[in-house]
Amino acid sequence: MKENKYDDARFFEKYSQMSRSRLGLRGAGEWPALERILPDFSGRAVLDLGCGYGWHCRYAADHGAASVIGVDLSRRMLERARELHPDPRITYRQAAMEDVDFPAGSLDIVFSSLAFHYVRDFPPLAERICRWLRPGGDLVFSVEHPTFTAYGSQDWWYGPGGEILHFPVDRYFTEGRREAVFLGEPVIKYHRTLTTYLETLLENGLLLRHVVEPQPPRELLDQPGMRDELRRPMMLLVRAQKPLKGA
Amino acid sequence: MKENKYDDARFFEKYSQMSRSRLGLRGAGEWPALERILPDFSGRAVLDLGCGYGWHCRYAADHGAASVIGVDLSRRMLERARELHPDPRITYRQAAMEDVDFPAGSLDIVFSSLAFHYVRDFPPLAERICRWLRPGGDLVFSVEHPTFTAYGSQDWWYGPGGEILHFPVDRYFTEGRREAVFLGEPVIKYHRTLTTYLETLLENGLLLRHVVEPQPPRELLDQPGMRDELRRPMMLLVRAQKPLKGA
Repeated sequence: MKENKYDDARFFEKYSQMSRSRLGLRGAGEWPALERILPDFSGRAVLDLGCGYGWHCRYAADHGAASVIGVDLSRRMLERARELHPDPRITYRQAAMEDVDFPAGSLDIVFSSLAFHYVRDFPPLAERICRWLRPGGDLVFSVEHPTFTAYGSQDWWYGPGGEILHFPVDRYFTEGRREAVFLGEPVIKYHRTLTTYLETLLENGLLLRHVVEPQPPRELLDQPGMRDELRRPMMLLVRAQKPLKGA
Repeated sequence: MKENKYDDARFFEKYSQMSRSRLGLRGAGEWPALERILPDFSGRAVLDLGCGYGWHCRYAADHGAASVIGVDLSRRMLERARELHPDPRITYRQAAMEDVDFPAGSLDIVFSSLAFHYVRDFPPLAERICRWLRPGGDLVFSVEHPTFTAYGSQDWWYGPGGEILHFPVDRYFTEGRREAVFLGEPVIKYHRTLTTYLETLLENGLLLRHVVEPQPPRELLDQPGMRDELRRPMMLLVRAQKPLKGA
């Protein structure tokens, strides 16, 4: 997330046209599946890493969170978040998620939507998040699916007539930097295996509560391109819980 | 597993030439990764579903298991297993894994190597396994990776010169029957998503202890074709534990 594409004016303008930017949570295909695995926010201290426009911060506040901290590297994103959701329970902080720190056991819920694949090293971040969580607290995040990030181009493989043939996978066990094109602009992401995501959480003592590959909601299947989303997994949703002491 | 390709003489002969058949565990590329996540077998009651030649039954017995039941649908496989490992602690039973039953709480470890992807319906099997396990007991299994089974052919995508381009993924969220070619013979397998494997275990109250995609051991990387195994995940190894009562 130290890369800050979102403060590039042209990229930001394109991003602001995406349905997840314009419509918020209901514009994000994975939201119904993500909402199903969320913990109860009432009275909780919540952190959102890579909060973007702040839609999830707003959701947490609207569902009773006691406090919400939204962290993002992009000044433009945070300006928009403050405009859209000027809620006194939400604090926005401009920082790379690799650089923020919180007291041990001070957070009930750490949330992150589609941001961890911008982070080069997942284990140190996971270790810090586990420290910040109180016992019984939850980490919930979405990332691009390892099957989706492995090859690098994040695009289909096409036949001679331009038709989709399938989705290509390669270099799966070669973790690290990938240069994809997103909204017509080059973007750097980091591929890592499912093993690295899940075993890192387990090594840090978290209990896996959910591991879900979201499918497009049935009611959206008739939208253009949506049936192709059944052909390969694009995202991975995880909920992991820090055990209660002595459990 | 109700399909019984392994009692077809020609197929069985080819299978018996594979390094995992001739050499046992050390002939299986995933074995080092699988061995690392195994629970302690000492004094345990062990079940092996789809035991094949019985190499894992033998391993469990050699590592102190009190009793081992090896289940396989193939008469030929079990004959070979009895010849290779005539251990009084091991009992072999010819049956489909969908058909066997055991008293609730009677097993400490349920193991299965590369067999669950022959089973059409995973949830009912998982439910029965969870019932058979005593609290604190473990289910450990390997399956073909969902990324590997999705497309169906289980083969690379080749360029015009016959060179490997990448591995194709398609129909990921369309679970069910796939017809692949294994050892030159058509074989029916069942594709299911990672979500189905893991969420089914979680819904049955198991704790996920390990989720690992094995990579070829470094010392084998110079064998023909082995570097290509770094290009896509072929297997998934899972260890899941039934919680102790009250935990």
